[in-house]
Amino acid sequence: MVPMWMSELGARSGLPIPTIKFYLRERLLPPGVAVGATRSRYDESHVRRLRLVRALTEVAGLRLDDVRRVLAAIDDPGTSLHDAIGSAHTRLVSPVAPGQGEELHPRVDALLARRGWQLDPSSPHRQALAGALAALEELGHPTRDAQLDVYAEAAESVARSDLEALDENSREDATEHAVVGTLLLEPVLLTLRRIAQENVSRRRAR
Amino acid sequence: MVPMWMSELGARSGLPIPTIKFYLRERLLPPGVAVGATRSRYDESHVRRLRLVRALTEVAGLRLDDVRRVLAAIDDPGTSLHDAIGSAHTRLVSPVAPGQGEELHPRVDALLARRGWQLDPSSPHRQALAGALAALEELGHPTRDAQLDVYAEAAESVARSDLEALDENSREDATEHAVVGTLLLEPVLLTLRRIAQENVSRRRAR
Repeated sequence: MVPMWMSELGARSGLPIPTIKFYLRERLLPPGVAVGATRSRYDESHVRRLRLVRALTEVAGLRLDDVRRVLAAIDDPGTSLHDAIGSAHTRLVSPVAPGQGEELHPRVDALLARRGWQLDPSSPHRQALAGALAALEELGHPTRDAQLDVYAEAAESVARSDLEALDENSREDATEHAVVGTLLLEPVLLTLRRIAQENVSRRRAR
Repeated sequence: MVPMWMSELGARSGLPIPTIKFYLRERLLPPGVAVGATRSRYDESHVRRLRLVRALTEVAGLRLDDVRRVLAAIDDPGTSLHDAIGSAHTRLVSPVAPGQGEELHPRVDALLARRGWQLDPSSPHRQALAGALAALEELGHPTRDAQLDVYAEAAESVARSDLEALDENSREDATEHAVVGTLLLEPVLLTLRRIAQENVSRRRAR
Protein backbone atom coordinates (compact mmCIF):
# COMPACT_ATOMS: atom_id res chain seq x y z
CA MET A 1 0.00 0.00 0.00
CA VAL A 2 1.13 3.52 -0.78
CA PRO A 3 1.42 5.66 2.36
CA MET A 4 -0.08 9.15 2.31
CA TRP A 5 0.02 12.45 4.14
CA MET A 6 -2.90 13.90 6.03
CA SER A 7 -3.87 16.18 3.12
CA GLU A 8 -4.53 13.12 0.95
CA LEU A 9 -6.45 11.52 3.81
CA GLY A 10 -8.72 14.57 3.75
CA ALA A 11 -9.24 14.42 0.00
CA ARG A 12 -9.95 10.68 -0.01
CA SER A 13 -12.35 10.73 2.95
CA GLY A 14 -14.08 14.01 2.13
CA LEU A 15 -13.42 15.27 5.64
CA PRO A 16 -11.76 18.59 6.58
CA ILE A 17 -8.28 18.33 8.13
CA PRO A 18 -9.36 19.81 11.50
CA THR A 19 -12.01 17.07 11.75
CA ILE A 20 -9.42 14.39 11.05
CA LYS A 21 -7.13 15.88 13.71
CA PHE A 22 -10.04 15.86 16.14
CA TYR A 23 -10.74 12.18 15.41
CA LEU A 24 -7.06 11.39 15.99
CA ARG A 25 -7.13 13.14 19.37
CA GLU A 26 -10.37 11.36 20.25
CA ARG A 27 -8.82 8.01 19.21
CA LEU A 28 -11.57 7.35 16.68
CA LEU A 29 -8.72 7.10 14.15
CA PRO A 30 -5.52 5.18 14.99
CA PRO A 31 -2.32 7.24 14.75
CA GLY A 32 -0.23 7.08 11.59
CA VAL A 33 3.47 6.22 11.43
CA ALA A 34 5.50 9.20 12.71
CA VAL A 35 7.91 10.69 10.17
CA GLY A 36 10.00 13.28 11.96
CA ALA A 37 8.63 15.34 14.84
CA THR A 38 5.44 16.77 13.36
CA ARG A 39 4.40 14.62 10.42
CA SER A 40 2.86 11.16 10.10
CA ARG A 41 2.07 8.90 7.20
CA TYR A 42 -1.21 7.08 6.82
CA ASP A 43 -2.50 4.19 4.70
CA GLU A 44 -5.69 2.75 3.20
CA SER A 45 -6.88 1.49 6.57
CA HIS A 46 -7.08 5.12 7.72
CA VAL A 47 -9.12 6.15 4.68
CA ARG A 48 -11.47 3.26 5.30
CA ARG A 49 -11.87 4.09 8.97
CA LEU A 50 -12.57 7.76 8.24
CA ARG A 51 -15.23 6.85 5.67
CA LEU A 52 -16.81 4.55 8.22
CA VAL A 53 -16.86 7.25 10.91
CA ARG A 54 -18.30 9.69 8.39
CA ALA A 55 -21.07 7.28 7.35
CA LEU A 56 -21.94 6.43 10.95
CA THR A 57 -22.26 10.09 11.88
CA GLU A 58 -23.75 11.56 8.68
CA VAL A 59 -25.92 8.69 7.43
CA ALA A 60 -26.72 6.63 10.50
CA GLY A 61 -26.87 9.77 12.65
CA LEU A 62 -24.83 8.35 15.53
CA ARG A 63 -23.24 10.52 18.18
CA LEU A 64 -19.49 10.25 18.65
CA ASP A 65 -19.68 8.16 21.81
CA ASP A 66 -21.90 5.66 19.96
CA VAL A 67 -19.45 5.66 17.05
CA ARG A 68 -16.73 4.83 19.55
CA ARG A 69 -18.72 1.84 20.81
CA VAL A 70 -19.39 0.59 17.29
CA LEU A 71 -15.69 0.80 16.42
CA ALA A 72 -14.82 -1.07 19.62
CA ALA A 73 -17.22 -3.86 18.62
CA ILE A 74 -15.73 -4.01 15.12
CA ASP A 75 -12.14 -4.01 16.39
CA ASP A 76 -12.73 -6.55 19.13
CA PRO A 77 -10.97 -9.72 17.89
CA GLY A 78 -12.16 -13.22 18.65
CA THR A 79 -15.86 -12.47 18.78
CA SER A 80 -18.00 -14.59 16.48
CA LEU A 81 -20.12 -12.88 13.87
CA HIS A 82 -23.25 -13.75 15.84
CA ASP A 83 -21.76 -12.29 19.00
CA ALA A 84 -20.63 -9.19 17.12
CA ILE A 85 -24.14 -8.51 15.84
CA GLY A 86 -25.50 -9.02 19.33
CA SER A 87 -22.87 -6.91 21.03
CA ALA A 88 -23.22 -4.03 18.58
CA HIS A 89 -26.96 -4.10 19.19
CA THR A 90 -26.63 -4.24 22.94
CA ARG A 91 -24.34 -1.27 22.91
CA LEU A 92 -26.55 0.75 20.63
CA VAL A 93 -30.02 0.54 22.07
CA SER A 94 -31.07 4.01 23.11
CA PRO A 95 -31.60 4.43 26.82
CA VAL A 96 -35.15 4.27 28.09
CA ALA A 97 -35.86 5.35 31.65
CA PRO A 98 -35.56 2.15 33.74
CA GLY A 99 -38.88 0.82 34.93
CA GLN A 100 -40.87 2.72 32.31
CA GLY A 101 -43.19 0.25 30.63
CA GLU A 102 -42.23 -2.70 32.82
CA GLU A 103 -45.87 -3.79 32.93
CA LEU A 104 -45.62 -4.35 29.18
CA HIS A 105 -42.79 -6.89 29.33
CA PRO A 106 -45.24 -9.83 29.26
CA ARG A 107 -46.84 -8.39 26.14
CA VAL A 108 -43.46 -8.08 24.48
CA ASP A 109 -42.62 -11.66 25.48
CA ALA A 110 -45.92 -12.89 24.03
CA LEU A 111 -45.12 -11.11 20.76
CA LEU A 112 -41.69 -12.78 20.60
CA ALA A 113 -43.21 -16.17 21.47
CA ARG A 114 -45.71 -15.88 18.61
CA ARG A 115 -42.76 -15.60 16.23
CA GLY A 116 -40.70 -18.26 17.99
CA TRP A 117 -37.98 -15.73 18.81
CA GLN A 118 -35.69 -16.08 21.78
CA LEU A 119 -34.41 -13.09 23.71
CA ASP A 120 -31.85 -13.11 26.49
CA PRO A 121 -33.46 -12.12 29.82
CA SER A 122 -30.85 -9.37 30.17
CA SER A 123 -31.30 -8.02 26.64
CA PRO A 124 -32.05 -4.29 26.52
CA HIS A 125 -34.32 -4.88 23.51
CA ARG A 126 -37.19 -6.01 25.77
CA GLN A 127 -37.06 -2.76 27.71
CA ALA A 128 -36.72 -0.70 24.51
CA LEU A 129 -39.86 -2.28 23.04
CA ALA A 130 -41.85 -2.08 26.27
CA GLY A 131 -40.82 1.55 26.76
CA ALA A 132 -41.96 2.54 23.27
CA LEU A 133 -45.29 0.71 23.65
CA ALA A 134 -45.82 2.30 27.07
CA ALA A 135 -45.18 5.76 25.63
CA LEU A 136 -47.68 5.16 22.82
CA GLU A 137 -50.30 4.02 25.34
CA GLU A 138 -49.68 6.96 27.63
CA LEU A 139 -50.19 9.31 24.70
CA GLY A 140 -53.55 7.67 23.95
CA HIS A 141 -52.28 5.74 20.92
CA PRO A 142 -52.26 2.10 22.06
CA THR A 143 -50.84 -0.41 19.61
CA ARG A 144 -52.74 -3.59 18.78
CA ASP A 145 -51.13 -7.01 18.72
CA ALA A 146 -52.14 -7.42 15.08
CA GLN A 147 -50.08 -4.35 14.15
CA LEU A 148 -47.09 -5.53 16.18
CA ASP A 149 -47.28 -8.90 14.41
CA VAL A 150 -47.11 -7.15 11.04
CA TYR A 151 -44.06 -5.25 12.28
CA ALA A 152 -42.40 -8.42 13.54
CA GLU A 153 -43.04 -10.28 10.29
CA ALA A 154 -41.64 -7.38 8.26
CA ALA A 155 -38.61 -7.27 10.58
CA GLU A 156 -38.00 -10.98 10.07
CA SER A 157 -38.09 -10.81 6.27
CA VAL A 158 -35.69 -7.86 6.37
CA ALA A 159 -33.37 -9.68 8.81
CA ARG A 160 -33.31 -12.76 6.57
CA SER A 161 -32.24 -10.67 3.59
CA ASP A 162 -29.60 -8.96 5.80
CA LEU A 163 -28.07 -12.31 6.70
CA GLU A 164 -28.17 -13.48 3.07
CA ALA A 165 -26.32 -10.34 2.00
CA LEU A 166 -23.76 -11.11 4.70
CA ASP A 167 -23.21 -14.59 3.26
CA GLU A 168 -22.54 -13.18 -0.18
CA ASN A 169 -19.96 -10.79 1.17
CA SER A 170 -18.41 -13.26 3.58
CA ARG A 171 -14.80 -12.27 4.22
CA GLU A 172 -12.38 -11.06 6.85
CA ASP A 173 -14.28 -7.95 7.82
CA ALA A 174 -17.62 -9.74 8.15
CA THR A 175 -18.00 -8.18 11.58
CA GLU A 176 -17.69 -4.69 10.15
CA HIS A 177 -20.11 -5.62 7.39
CA ALA A 178 -22.67 -6.89 9.89
CA VAL A 179 -22.46 -3.80 12.05
CA VAL A 180 -22.35 -1.35 9.14
CA GLY A 181 -25.23 -3.09 7.35
CA THR A 182 -27.33 -3.04 10.49
CA LEU A 183 -26.74 0.65 11.09
CA LEU A 184 -26.69 2.12 7.59
CA LEU A 185 -29.74 0.19 6.40
CA GLU A 186 -31.77 1.53 9.33
CA PRO A 187 -32.34 4.93 7.67
CA VAL A 188 -33.13 3.07 4.42
CA LEU A 189 -35.86 1.05 6.12
CA LEU A 190 -37.30 4.09 7.90
CA THR A 191 -37.26 6.22 4.76
CA LEU A 192 -38.95 3.48 2.72
CA ARG A 193 -41.64 3.21 5.43
CA ARG A 194 -42.29 6.94 5.12
CA ILE A 195 -42.49 6.81 1.34
CA ALA A 196 -44.84 3.82 1.63
CA GLN A 197 -47.02 5.65 4.17
CA GLU A 198 -47.33 8.60 1.83
CA ASN A 199 -48.25 6.34 -1.07
CA VAL A 200 -50.76 4.22 0.84
CA SER A 201 -52.26 7.40 2.27
CA ARG A 202 -52.40 9.05 -1.18
CA ARG A 203 -54.24 6.07 -2.68
CA ARG A 204 -56.80 6.20 0.12
CA ALA A 205 -57.27 9.97 -0.20
CA ARG A 206 -58.51 9.60 -3.78
CA MET B 1 -61.20 20.29 33.39
CA VAL B 2 -59.53 20.85 36.73
CA PRO B 3 -56.70 23.36 36.54
CA MET B 4 -53.39 22.50 38.24
CA TRP B 5 -50.19 24.06 39.48
CA MET B 6 -46.80 23.34 38.02
CA SER B 7 -45.98 20.83 40.77
CA GLU B 8 -48.86 18.63 39.62
CA LEU B 9 -47.76 19.07 36.02
CA GLY B 10 -44.40 17.63 37.07
CA ALA B 11 -45.95 14.67 38.87
CA ARG B 12 -48.32 13.86 36.00
CA SER B 13 -45.73 14.14 33.24
CA GLY B 14 -42.83 12.58 35.13
CA LEU B 15 -40.63 15.55 34.29
CA PRO B 16 -38.63 17.67 36.78
CA ILE B 17 -39.88 21.23 37.34
CA PRO B 18 -36.70 22.86 35.93
CA THR B 19 -37.24 20.90 32.70
CA ILE B 20 -40.84 22.09 32.47
CA LYS B 21 -39.71 25.68 33.04
CA PHE B 22 -37.13 25.23 30.29
CA TYR B 23 -39.79 23.93 27.89
CA LEU B 24 -41.98 26.95 28.73
CA ARG B 25 -39.10 29.34 27.96
CA GLU B 26 -38.36 27.45 24.76
CA ARG B 27 -42.07 27.61 23.78
CA LEU B 28 -42.31 23.82 23.50
CA LEU B 29 -45.09 24.16 26.09
CA PRO B 30 -47.74 26.90 25.78
CA PRO B 31 -47.97 29.22 28.80
CA GLY B 32 -50.60 28.57 31.47
CA VAL B 33 -53.18 31.08 32.69
CA ALA B 34 -51.44 33.64 34.93
CA VAL B 35 -52.76 33.79 38.51
CA GLY B 36 -51.10 36.73 40.22
CA ALA B 37 -47.59 37.85 39.37
CA THR B 38 -45.60 34.64 39.70
CA ARG B 39 -47.99 31.69 39.41
CA SER B 40 -49.87 30.11 36.53
CA ARG B 41 -52.44 27.38 36.27
CA TYR B 42 -52.28 24.59 33.73
CA ASP B 43 -54.69 21.98 32.37
CA GLU B 44 -54.82 18.54 30.78
CA SER B 45 -53.59 19.87 27.44
CA HIS B 46 -50.32 20.80 29.16
CA VAL B 47 -49.92 17.32 30.66
CA ARG B 48 -50.55 15.81 27.25
CA ARG B 49 -48.08 18.10 25.53
CA LEU B 50 -45.36 17.37 28.12
CA ARG B 51 -45.86 13.62 27.74
CA LEU B 52 -45.58 14.02 23.99
CA VAL B 53 -42.35 16.03 24.26
CA ARG B 54 -40.97 13.45 26.69
CA ALA B 55 -41.82 10.55 24.36
CA LEU B 56 -40.35 12.31 21.33
CA THR B 57 -37.08 12.99 23.15
CA GLU B 58 -36.71 9.84 25.27
CA VAL B 59 -38.28 7.18 23.03
CA ALA B 60 -37.98 8.54 19.50
CA GLY B 61 -34.63 10.16 20.36
CA LEU B 62 -35.39 13.50 18.68
CA ARG B 63 -33.41 16.61 19.39
CA LEU B 64 -35.29 19.65 20.69
CA ASP B 65 -35.27 21.50 17.37
CA ASP B 66 -36.81 18.42 15.70
CA VAL B 67 -39.39 18.22 18.49
CA ARG B 68 -40.23 21.84 17.77
CA ARG B 69 -40.81 21.02 14.09
CA VAL B 70 -42.99 18.03 14.93
CA LEU B 71 -45.12 20.12 17.27
CA ALA B 72 -45.48 22.80 14.59
CA ALA B 73 -46.73 20.15 12.14
CA ILE B 74 -49.21 18.83 14.71
CA ASP B 75 -50.46 22.29 15.66
CA ASP B 76 -50.76 23.56 12.10
CA PRO B 77 -54.52 23.73 11.45
CA GLY B 78 -56.11 23.14 8.09
CA THR B 79 -53.63 20.59 6.81
CA SER B 80 -55.13 17.32 5.67
CA LEU B 81 -54.01 14.12 7.32
CA HIS B 82 -52.14 13.13 4.19
CA ASP B 83 -50.40 16.49 4.09
CA ALA B 84 -49.58 16.24 7.79
CA ILE B 85 -47.88 12.87 7.35
CA GLY B 86 -45.95 14.24 4.41
CA SER B 87 -44.99 17.47 6.10
CA ALA B 88 -43.83 15.75 9.27
CA HIS B 89 -41.69 13.46 7.13
CA THR B 90 -40.26 16.26 5.07
CA ARG B 91 -39.28 18.14 8.17
CA LEU B 92 -37.69 15.15 9.83
CA VAL B 93 -35.42 13.60 7.25
CA SER B 94 -31.87 13.84 8.51
CA PRO B 95 -29.60 16.01 6.43
CA VAL B 96 -27.32 14.27 3.95
CA ALA B 97 -24.56 16.26 2.33
CA PRO B 98 -26.07 17.63 -0.92
CA GLY B 99 -24.78 15.88 -3.99
CA GLN B 100 -23.59 12.81 -2.11
CA GLY B 101 -24.98 9.79 -3.88
CA GLU B 102 -26.61 11.74 -6.70
CA GLU B 103 -25.48 9.08 -9.18
CA LEU B 104 -27.74 6.66 -7.31
CA HIS B 105 -30.96 8.64 -7.83
CA PRO B 106 -31.88 6.58 -10.94
CA ARG B 107 -31.45 3.39 -8.91
CA VAL B 108 -33.73 4.75 -6.20
CA ASP B 109 -36.29 5.77 -8.83
CA ALA B 110 -36.18 2.27 -10.35
CA LEU B 111 -36.80 0.77 -6.90
CA LEU B 112 -39.82 3.03 -6.39
CA ALA B 113 -41.11 2.25 -9.89
CA ARG B 114 -40.95 -1.51 -9.22
CA ARG B 115 -43.35 -0.95 -6.31
CA GLY B 116 -45.51 1.53 -8.17
CA TRP B 117 -44.69 4.28 -5.67
CA GLN B 118 -44.73 7.95 -6.55
CA LEU B 119 -42.33 10.43 -5.02
CA ASP B 120 -42.37 14.17 -5.43
CA PRO B 121 -39.29 15.35 -7.39
CA SER B 122 -38.46 17.70 -4.52
CA SER B 123 -38.87 15.07 -1.79
CA PRO B 124 -35.83 14.73 0.48
CA HIS B 125 -36.49 10.99 0.74
CA ARG B 126 -34.81 10.35 -2.62
CA GLN B 127 -31.62 12.03 -1.46
CA ALA B 128 -31.78 10.25 1.93
CA LEU B 129 -32.00 6.85 0.24
CA ALA B 130 -29.35 7.61 -2.38
CA GLY B 131 -27.01 8.98 0.31
CA ALA B 132 -27.32 5.84 2.43
CA LEU B 133 -26.78 3.54 -0.57
CA ALA B 134 -23.77 5.60 -1.66
CA ALA B 135 -22.25 5.35 1.81
CA LEU B 136 -22.72 1.57 1.84
CA GLU B 137 -21.04 1.30 -1.56
CA GLU B 138 -18.17 3.53 -0.57
CA LEU B 139 -17.55 1.33 2.47
CA GLY B 140 -17.38 -1.74 0.22
CA HIS B 141 -20.82 -3.03 1.21
CA PRO B 142 -22.94 -2.51 -1.91
CA THR B 143 -26.63 -3.35 -1.59
CA ARG B 144 -28.35 -5.55 -4.16
CA ASP B 145 -31.68 -4.68 -5.72
CA ALA B 146 -33.16 -7.93 -4.38
CA GLN B 147 -32.40 -6.82 -0.82
CA LEU B 148 -33.85 -3.36 -1.41
CA ASP B 149 -37.01 -4.95 -2.78
CA VAL B 150 -37.37 -7.00 0.40
CA TYR B 151 -36.97 -3.80 2.40
CA ALA B 152 -39.55 -1.96 0.30
CA GLU B 153 -42.06 -4.79 0.57
CA ALA B 154 -41.61 -4.93 4.36
CA ALA B 155 -42.00 -1.14 4.50
CA GLU B 156 -45.24 -1.33 2.53
CA SER B 157 -46.82 -3.96 4.77
CA VAL B 158 -45.86 -1.92 7.83
CA ALA B 159 -47.23 1.27 6.27
CA ARG B 160 -50.53 -0.45 5.48
CA SER B 161 -50.93 -1.53 9.08
CA ASP B 162 -50.02 2.01 10.21
CA LEU B 163 -52.82 3.49 8.12
CA GLU B 164 -55.30 0.85 9.34
CA ALA B 165 -54.43 1.71 12.95
CA LEU B 166 -55.06 5.35 12.07
CA ASP B 167 -58.53 4.51 10.74
CA GLU B 168 -59.46 2.77 13.99
CA ASN B 169 -58.41 5.75 16.04
CA SER B 170 -59.90 8.31 13.69
CA ARG B 171 -60.71 11.44 15.67
CA GLU B 172 -59.85 15.12 16.12
CA ASP B 173 -56.17 14.61 16.84
CA ALA B 174 -55.62 12.27 13.89
CA THR B 175 -52.72 14.47 12.83
CA GLU B 176 -50.99 13.98 16.16
CA HIS B 177 -51.70 10.27 15.97
CA ALA B 178 -50.17 10.02 12.51
CA VAL B 179 -47.03 11.89 13.49
CA VAL B 180 -46.65 10.17 16.86
CA GLY B 181 -47.27 6.73 15.36
CA THR B 182 -44.72 7.36 12.64
CA LEU B 183 -42.05 8.47 15.07
CA LEU B 184 -42.62 6.23 18.09
CA LEU B 185 -43.02 3.06 16.05
CA GLU B 186 -39.66 3.68 14.36
CA PRO B 187 -37.66 2.40 17.36
CA VAL B 188 -40.12 -0.53 17.58
CA LEU B 189 -39.40 -1.52 13.97
CA LEU B 190 -35.64 -1.13 14.36
CA THR B 191 -35.56 -3.07 17.63
CA LEU B 192 -37.63 -5.90 16.14
CA ARG B 193 -35.21 -6.02 13.18
CA ARG B 194 -32.30 -6.42 15.60
CA ILE B 195 -34.04 -9.17 17.57
CA ALA B 196 -34.89 -10.90 14.28
CA GLN B 197 -31.27 -10.62 13.08
CA GLU B 198 -30.05 -12.20 16.29
CA ASN B 199 -32.55 -15.04 15.96
CA VAL B 200 -31.94 -15.71 12.27
CA SER B 201 -28.20 -15.59 12.93
CA ARG B 202 -28.50 -17.93 15.94
CA ARG B 203 -30.43 -20.50 13.92
CA ARG B 204 -27.73 -20.44 11.24
CA ALA B 205 -24.93 -20.70 13.78
CA ARG B 206 -26.18 -24.09 14.96
